[in-house]
Amino acid sequence: MRIDIITVLPELIKSPFEASILKRAIEKGLVEVHFHNLRDYTTNKQKSVDDYQFGGGAGMVMNIQPIDDCIAKLKDERDYDEIIYMTPDGETLNQNMANGMSLLKNIIILCGHYKGVDQRVRDHFITREISIGDYVLSGGELGAAILCDSIIRLIPGVLSNETSALTDSFQDNLLSPPIYTRPADYKGWKVPEILLSGNFPKIEEWREQKAYEHTKNRRPDLLEE
Amino acid sequence: MRIDIITVLPELIKSPFEASILKRAIEKGLVEVHFHNLRDYTTNKQKSVDDYQFGGGAGMVMNIQPIDDCIAKLKDERDYDEIIYMTPDGETLNQNMANGMSLLKNIIILCGHYKGVDQRVRDHFITREISIGDYVLSGGELGAAILCDSIIRLIPGVLSNETSALTDSFQDNLLSPPIYTRPADYKGWKVPEILLSGNFPKIEEWREQKAYEHTKNRRPDLLEE
Repeated sequence: MRIDIITVLPELIKSPFEASILKRAIEKGLVEVHFHNLRDYTTNKQKSVDDYQFGGGAGMVMNIQPIDDCIAKLKDERDYDEIIYMTPDGETLNQNMANGMSLLKNIIILCGHYKGVDQRVRDHFITREISIGDYVLSGGELGAAILCDSIIRLIPGVLSNETSALTDSFQDNLLSPPIYTRPADYKGWKVPEILLSGNFPKIEEWREQKAYEHTKNRRPDLLEE
Repeated sequence: MRIDIITVLPELIKSPFEASILKRAIEKGLVEVHFHNLRDYTTNKQKSVDDYQFGGGAGMVMNIQPIDDCIAKLKDERDYDEIIYMTPDGETLNQNMANGMSLLKNIIILCGHYKGVDQRVRDHFITREISIGDYVLSGGELGAAILCDSIIRLIPGVLSNETSALTDSFQDNLLSPPIYTRPADYKGWKVPEILLSGNFPKIEEWREQKAYEHTKNRRPDLLEE
C-alpha cells in the first residue's frame, strides 16, 4: 500500500511514523508513506498557501492552486483508489471503514489546516471526506495520522500476531473484556481466579460474558447493530 | 493548564506539540505539556513495562507497577482534576467534552499501548476513560495528541482570533458552510456570487442556510439534539 499525505506542516505529522508499529511496517516494506509539502507547489511569489475568506470572517482558507498541482502530479505518476480530505464534517471513521481501506493500493490524504480548504477543492478533486470524530482540531494532520494508524495496523504482516488485531474492540461489535498481567496480587488487588485456573474453555466463556456485559453497560448501541 | 502524558513511547507523540498552534500555545505559557516515559518508573531488572496476559491470548498487557509509581509521584506534586485513560471503550470524545475539559487546571493522560493496561489500573487510578472514536489504534499516544489538540486550541489566547474557534463545526450543532478564497474564478470554477457582493447581512444569511442544508444532508443527527 502507498499513502501520499499532502500537508502544509509535514513536520507536525512525522513522529508517529517514526516509532513503533508504523515505523516497522514501513521498514518491512508493507506500506510506503510519502509527505508532500504544499509550499513546494505554490506558484505565487510569497509562497503562501492560504488567503482570506471571500465574504469576510475569521480564519484563513487554503488555496486551490497548490493542491490542484500537487494532486495532478501524483495522479500523473499512478492511479489512486481514493483522494481523501480529512474534515470534521466528513463520514465518521469506524473500524469497518478501516478494514475496507486496509485493502486499497494507493491513496492520497489531504490535510486541511487553518479554516480548511477552498470548497472547489472538495467539489472537484476529493473522492471521499473522512472525519475521525465530532470535535475540531487545529488541522487535518493528526486526523491523517489516526487514519493511517487504523489502516496500517490491519495490513497482513504488520502486527506480529494477526489474532491480536482480530480480537480488538469493535471487530465483532463487542468491546474487549478486562485483561490482567503479573503480579496476580498487587497491593491486595487480585486478578480474577478464573484467569489463573488454566481451564481455557472456561476462560474463553468468562471473557465472552465479560465482553458482552461491558458492551451492554457502556455501548449498548453496538449490540443493536 | 498543565497536561502530564504518561507513555512508553514519548518519541511517537512529540512532533504534534513541536509545530503550529500547540507549539505556540506552549511557548506563550498558556499550557504546559510534560511527557513521562514509563520505562523510567519500572523496578524490574529487565526494565520491561509489559507482560503476557493471564489466561492466555495474543497481545501484551502493560504492568500496573510503573503506572502506579508514575501517577503517585505526580499526585504527590500537585492535585489533578482528572486522570484520563485513552481507550476505544471509553466515553467518545466530542466538542462539548473538549469545551468542558479546556477549563481544567491539571490533567494526567495515560496512553495504553500493546493490548492495553492491566484492568486494576483502570479500576483504581483512572477517573475518566476517553475514546476518540470507534476504531482501534496501535496505542493511546495519537489519541492523547488528538485530545490535547482539541482542548488546547480552546484555551483563550491560543487561537489568534477567538471567533475562529467559535464558528467551527459542532460549536452550534451545525457543520460549517462552504468557504472560498482567491481566485474568484479558477479554471472556470467560480465562487458563489453572493460572497463577492459585499452585502454582509445577506452573506451571513446565505452561510446560515448553507450550514443548515449541509448538516441536514450529512449529519441530520446533529439537528435532533
